[in-house]
Amino acid sequence: MKPVERLIAALKRLPGIGPKQAERLTIHLLRAPRAEVESLADALREAVETVRRCARCGDFTDRELCRICADPGRDQALICVVEEPQDVAALDRTHAFRGLYHVLHGALSPLDGIGPEKIRARELVERVRASNGAVKEVVLATDPDTEGEATALYLAQQLKGLPVKVTRIAHGVPLGGDLDYLDERTLSHALSGRREV
Amino acid sequence: MKPVERLIAALKRLPGIGPKQAERLTIHLLRAPRAEVESLADALREAVETVRRCARCGDFTDRELCRICADPGRDQALICVVEEPQDVAALDRTHAFRGLYHVLHGALSPLDGIGPEKIRARELVERVRASNGAVKEVVLATDPDTEGEATALYLAQQLKGLPVKVTRIAHGVPLGGDLDYLDERTLSHALSGRREV
Repeated sequence: MKPVERLIAALKRLPGIGPKQAERLTIHLLRAPRAEVESLADALREAVETVRRCARCGDFTDRELCRICADPGRDQALICVVEEPQDVAALDRTHAFRGLYHVLHGALSPLDGIGPEKIRARELVERVRASNGAVKEVVLATDPDTEGEATALYLAQQLKGLPVKVTRIAHGVPLGGDLDYLDERTLSHALSGRREV
Repeated sequence: MKPVERLIAALKRLPGIGPKQAERLTIHLLRAPRAEVESLADALREAVETVRRCARCGDFTDRELCRICADPGRDQALICVVEEPQDVAALDRTHAFRGLYHVLHGALSPLDGIGPEKIRARELVERVRASNGAVKEVVLATDPDTEGEATALYLAQQLKGLPVKVTRIAHGVPLGGDLDYLDERTLSHALSGRREV
């Protein structure tokens, strides 16, 4: 394969990038300053060579422990469980949570052959057990879809019997949204989860 | 910057890739087999190191002359002028054109500061003149928008006086389309360009 076609093919393999966009990206890169393309190639190499999973929470990091797990200022008694690394980034941007995270790298999905052994479920139970009561609460922040709900249910069952409080993040009407544009399931969740003001 | 953030930043600089997609692509690449990421990095490096512009038509290639210009089986009397390298790929896939191409790498756009000297216009006139009458026809296949039309008009003027026929690709109703979904300019083009059957 010629260099141009090889680059188009390599970009086309990325998720969410179709043949047209791969072609357009390639033309852009061929016209871009050489340093820009080289810095992308370097970033790719550096990432595969240095990035691994945090030994505690499973998030991507270039150290043994990630930035959050290594921070003594974080509340060690609180673990927020999420499906993906980008969920950690999104939640941490809010500054509303000062505890630690646990990244499952997936959610239960029997139809896709993803059982508990494929996500970091056992590691969570082990982590809580090994803390000898130091972890006081596990917040289940898996996605509000079928797989996320099933995963939260499964994890809650697995944690039962350990001296830890298990909670689920609140579901309801997102702020700034229009009520009449919301789907019925979110609205019914918001109603059944209503609180006295 | 950390390796993960550096890769997100490098991907975000690409056109049409927003912060969310850059994050998602990074997570994908960190989970992908190392060989896949390395082949993308290699393709990038190989492209910047080996790809240049064809000395005749200006299309991207890794040789002195591109595949089409170097092919003696192509009709040397016919040059199809396009704005971008991907237009060559699109037109050549049709197998309806067996001549040569000329890539302008842009279109006239005075508002964006793109004048004739920024596109390969002079090179086209030189190429036709230097052929000493061997080039019989120049097909202007610039885009059917304001910039493309202005570019076609400019090139036609520049080629006037040379012993070459200058034509413009036909505009009209695309095959397989629904008449009532087409814009009025295309429809009026299709009407004014009607031919006897």
